[in-house]
Order: sequence, then structure tokens, then C-alpha cells
Amino acid sequence: MTLEPSKLAMVPFVSVENMMKFVHHIGIERVLCDLAHEIEADFKRWELFDKTPRVGSHSDVGVIELMPTSDGEMYGFKYVNGHPKNAGEGLQTVTAFGLLADVYSGYPVMLSEMTVLTALRTAAMSAVATKALAPKGAKIMAMIGNGAQSEFQCLAIKAYCGIETVRLYDIDPAATVKCAANLTTTGLRVEPCSSIEEVVEGAQIITTATADKDMQQILTDNHVGAGVHINAIGGDCPGKTELHRDIVSRSTVFVEYPPQTRIEGEIQQMDPDHPVTELWEVLAGKTNGRTSLNEVTLFDGVGFAIEDFSALRYVHSWIKDTPYFDDLDMIADPDDPRDLFGMLQRAK
Amino acid sequence: MTLEPSKLAMVPFVSVENMMKFVHHIGIERVLCDLAHEIEADFKRWELFDKTPRVGSHSDVGVIELMPTSDGEMYGFKYVNGHPKNAGEGLQTVTAFGLLADVYSGYPVMLSEMTVLTALRTAAMSAVATKALAPKGAKIMAMIGNGAQSEFQCLAIKAYCGIETVRLYDIDPAATVKCAANLTTTGLRVEPCSSIEEVVEGAQIITTATADKDMQQILTDNHVGAGVHINAIGGDCPGKTELHRDIVSRSTVFVEYPPQTRIEGEIQQMDPDHPVTELWEVLAGKTNGRTSLNEVTLFDGVGFAIEDFSALRYVHSWIKDTPYFDDLDMIADPDDPRDLFGMLQRAK
Repeated sequence: MTLEPSKLAMVPFVSVENMMKFVHHIGIERVLCDLAHEIEADFKRWELFDKTPRVGSHSDVGVIELMPTSDGEMYGFKYVNGHPKNAGEGLQTVTAFGLLADVYSGYPVMLSEMTVLTALRTAAMSAVATKALAPKGAKIMAMIGNGAQSEFQCLAIKAYCGIETVRLYDIDPAATVKCAANLTTTGLRVEPCSSIEEVVEGAQIITTATADKDMQQILTDNHVGAGVHINAIGGDCPGKTELHRDIVSRSTVFVEYPPQTRIEGEIQQMDPDHPVTELWEVLAGKTNGRTSLNEVTLFDGVGFAIEDFSALRYVHSWIKDTPYFDDLDMIADPDDPRDLFGMLQRAK
Repeated sequence: MTLEPSKLAMVPFVSVENMMKFVHHIGIERVLCDLAHEIEADFKRWELFDKTPRVGSHSDVGVIELMPTSDGEMYGFKYVNGHPKNAGEGLQTVTAFGLLADVYSGYPVMLSEMTVLTALRTAAMSAVATKALAPKGAKIMAMIGNGAQSEFQCLAIKAYCGIETVRLYDIDPAATVKCAANLTTTGLRVEPCSSIEEVVEGAQIITTATADKDMQQILTDNHVGAGVHINAIGGDCPGKTELHRDIVSRSTVFVEYPPQTRIEGEIQQMDPDHPVTELWEVLAGKTNGRTSLNEVTLFDGVGFAIEDFSALRYVHSWIKDTPYFDDLDMIADPDDPRDLFGMLQRAK
């Protein structure tokens, strides 16, 4: 006789469909703000976390990475791939899922899709950096690169930082049309632009989220006026950058985790000891963020495991009270832990 | 309108219950032999694999580890915890699950429970080592430590190496009673013993699978006769060994992956340059295994990522033709990969 698996054997699983339902249940702007708060709270206790650079497995066409971290009570990791060539084959460039576990027992407590959740947390991370670093009262953002991440960025920075206008530009005009259409009902004023020069005009915030696996110079120094805050989100692996190095030289650079950003971020173009400020220190009040109106601040964002941890913990804390998960029989739970074989035999 | 997730978004998931059904569908002894063949085949192409020591997150009470590897075509990783104190709290000391992915696209192709599967592959691994190293015609094995791993070890070495008799010993007689009962219908002659001295009598193979997180000396030098093959399976983390170092000194030591075994295996007791032979080289015919009848051979097994990879790939290759999996909606698959936000909006 096969007995029903016990409660302990069950791990809640949040599918893509359930994640989308969950986001609408809470409200997308509220989710983005909640995630920003969670990330900010976790960055403030940065020193508590186990920090390791991602563990990557590289091939000619892409990378598969594991990004683990722990705060001593919970453990989380994300599986994420990066395959730029996938887009041309009708596949996602990036897919992801993640797991949260209890450090005390080692038992998984939630498995979740993270393709949608990563888009949300990446946008929330930019919102955190923007709130900390952008000039006060900034209302206009230039969004360069209007792909899969763009609407999330616009909405997060609206909801968390109060921008009112987004100016859109992409080398592919169809991407701008798509982005603009998706943003029509959000309350943002949307201004499609047809060149880099046009899109940055009047913007106090510039966010770049382009995806080519190349050293690009989407933005050059003459595009960047005094006092602007830049979120450079698209450069996130070795050999992939978006900004001309003159911009990086002129900016005060803020990063998540320096050992990872020096390999993956815009600062891979600079000397290995190029000065950077860790964003967590700004958020924790240990160091300054922006110190003058004319300063150019650059958030060189590559995505770090703690952000995924914050996002997984947030979903875990809310999902229990919703119907938006399924129980997976993922863990063997024999009545007698020494009798795994007996459990197997009884399943006959 | 929510559209059904596409086929690409679906990842087959093998639950604990389905894994058990799958094993009975194929037959447990055949599964053990198949796994041994798969492991042997993968060890023969050892140099192809990406090899990294496990990525561990340690706490006072246990460890959570990720064990990734890749052969360039497929990528696999296992999540596994080790919490010795769990047994006293009605929980499993070790739970595990794993994932297999396609290196070319980065897409996951199977998620599987691995608590049961790890027990099977660990036993299959011992069978591979035993077949390569034990004296020819060995028919009697001493099984020391009669916990969760013991029956699997006995059955794998019966099925793959042809032993006929197992002699059982555990410091807890109840464990021996359980193990003996589980093995009654397997065709093995089962001889429960009440001391180490008794259990090793006449055995050409000695397998130790004890679980204490301590430097133990379950076996001392006087217990080990000339020509014996030892599988030391239970010592698998820093600070946990089973054999007296005199036995290790006297044996020819075979290991999976030296950088990991020197930290986790019996040889953690020895000098950092204690001579070892990599088992894959024996299997690939690059070096000798046993060279004389009197030699004591020791397989210092700690478990390596490639064994999990072999096991996942085996299950993946067979499961498609069975009903023993569920499809999980784990990967977002928007019609237009650049329109993740649109997919989310349409899910409203």
C-alpha cells in the first residue's frame, strides 16, 4: 500500500501561471514597492549574509549559473541561464527558478519560477538604487533598450521613486512600440523617441537595459549631462557592457558586490582597483550616496543573489495565504528515517 | 485570457512517489545495475566533465550543498543537505533533489527528487568500485552500519558483482534487525552479527556506511585481513571518518575526485599528498586497480557530482516512456520573448 506522502515531504511550488496570478492578486506596483523594501531591508543587514560569486558553467553559446546565499536562518539559490542566441530561436534568453530552504533543518520550504520574479526584483533593485542616488524630485526617465526588462523598470521607478514621464528608445523601433503600448494604462506619460540624443533630453534618470553580448557603447559621454543618475542594467556578464568608459570615469560608481561586478559590470572596462561604493553602505547610512547636484551617479547593476533571496522570501511570506501554489512531493519522508529501503519496498 | 503554458514552458518532475513507482517498474536490481553501467561509462569519459567541488553553505547544525557538473551537452546539479541532528527530530538527515538541463538552450529538462535516487546511485557507485577492485570471485560482504544506505549497498553489490552472502553489523541491533528483514526476499543469504570481529570473518568485501559526525574508528587494523576490498562510504564530510588511519596507510586508496576527497574522505586523516589513485583511471584502463591477491584496496567514497549526473540522465532517458512524471509550469514562455510584461498583463 502506498501511503500519502506526509506534510513534511511537501514543498510549495509557485508555477509561472501562479506567480502571475499572485502578482495581480497583490497588484504589480505594490509588488514592486514591496520587493524594493525587502531588498533595501536585506541590503541594510548585508554583513549577515553568506556571499559567494555565482557558480557558472560556461559553454560556447551561453552560461548556466547557480546563485546561492543565506542569512543564517534561510537559504536561497537561483538557477539562471543566459543564452543570447535563444531569442533568435523562439526561446527565452534568460529563464530562472529558485528555491528557499530552512537552514536549521536543511529542508526546502518553497520552489518557485523566477523568470517573472527576476524581472520584478531587477526592476525593484533599480528603484532602490534610484531612490538612494537620483537627484531629488526627478520626474523624467530615459529608458534605453525596450526589451523584456523595460516596462518593469519604468513601473518600479514610477511606483517607488515617483517619476511621471518615461522617454523610450531602442535600436529596434518595434520594441519601443511594444513597450509604449504596454505602458499606456499605467499612468506614466510615455514619450517614444527615435535616437539616443532625443531620448536623454531632459531626463534626470537614464536606465539602460540592452541585451547584446558585446562591448557596446550605447551611451557616450556627450549624452550624459551633469547631475544625472544612470542605472546600467544590461551589462551583466564578462564581455558585455553598455557605456563608454568615459562615462564610467566621470561618474561616482555604485555596485552591489564588488568581486562580482568587477567581472560582470560596466567596471570590467576599468582598472581592477577602480573606486566603487557598495550600495549597501549607502542604504545603511555608512557612507554617502550623491554628494552634489552636478555629480553623475552610476548604479552598475549586475544582479546579486541577495536580491533573489529577498524576492523568494517575500513570495514565501505571502503565498501561504493564497491559493497560488501547488504542493510538490519532493522530499522522501520515511516513517523511520533509517528505513528508506522499507519505504521503497512498501511503494510496490 | 490566460493561455495554456506552451510545451516549452513545461519541465517534467519526478516526485518521490513517482521515483519509487519508476524503480519498481524497471525493477530495483536492474536499476542498480543500469546506474552502475551509466556511472562507469561517465567515469570513462571523466576528462570531458566540468568538475567543481561542492558549493556548501555551512551552519552550526548542518550544511546545504549544490553539486553542479556538465559534460558539455547536459548540465546537472543536486541540492543536498546534511543535518545529523535531524534524525533525532523525526526528519531525514539527508534530503536531495536535482535538475538536468540542456547546455545548448539553458532550459531545464527534468526536475527530480533525489533522496531515493541518491541512495540508489551511492550503492551503484560502490558496486562499480567493488567490481573493479575486489578480489575475483568474492561472495561474502560484511555490511557495517545498517542504516538507510545499507540494503541498497547489499543489493547493488549482489546484482552487479555477484556476492551471495551479506554479514550485517550495527552498534544498534534494531538497525540490523530492520536491514535483515528488508533483505529476506532478495535471494541474499543474510547473517546478522553482534560484533565487528564477527562480521568481518570470512568477508572478502567490507562496506562501512555509518553516520556519526565524528572521527570514528569503526574498523581498526586488526579487523582487516589481507586481500580484502573496503568500501568506506559513511565518512563524507570534514570531521567524519570511519577507519583507523593504520588501515588507510596499509591500503591502496582509490577515490573519485581528489580535491574533494582530501577534505571529506577517510584520507582527511592523512598527509595532504597521501598517494591516491583516481578510480576513473582504473575504469578507463589508464592505470592498475588491484595488483595482487594480498593487497588491501580501499574505495574512499564521498559521492561526486558526476554520479548524480549519471543518475539524472538515466532517469531522464527512461521516464519519458512511463507515466511516472508530472509536467511543471516552471519556465516563462512568452510568445514574444521580449514581451514578458505583456504576458504578465494578459494573465490578469
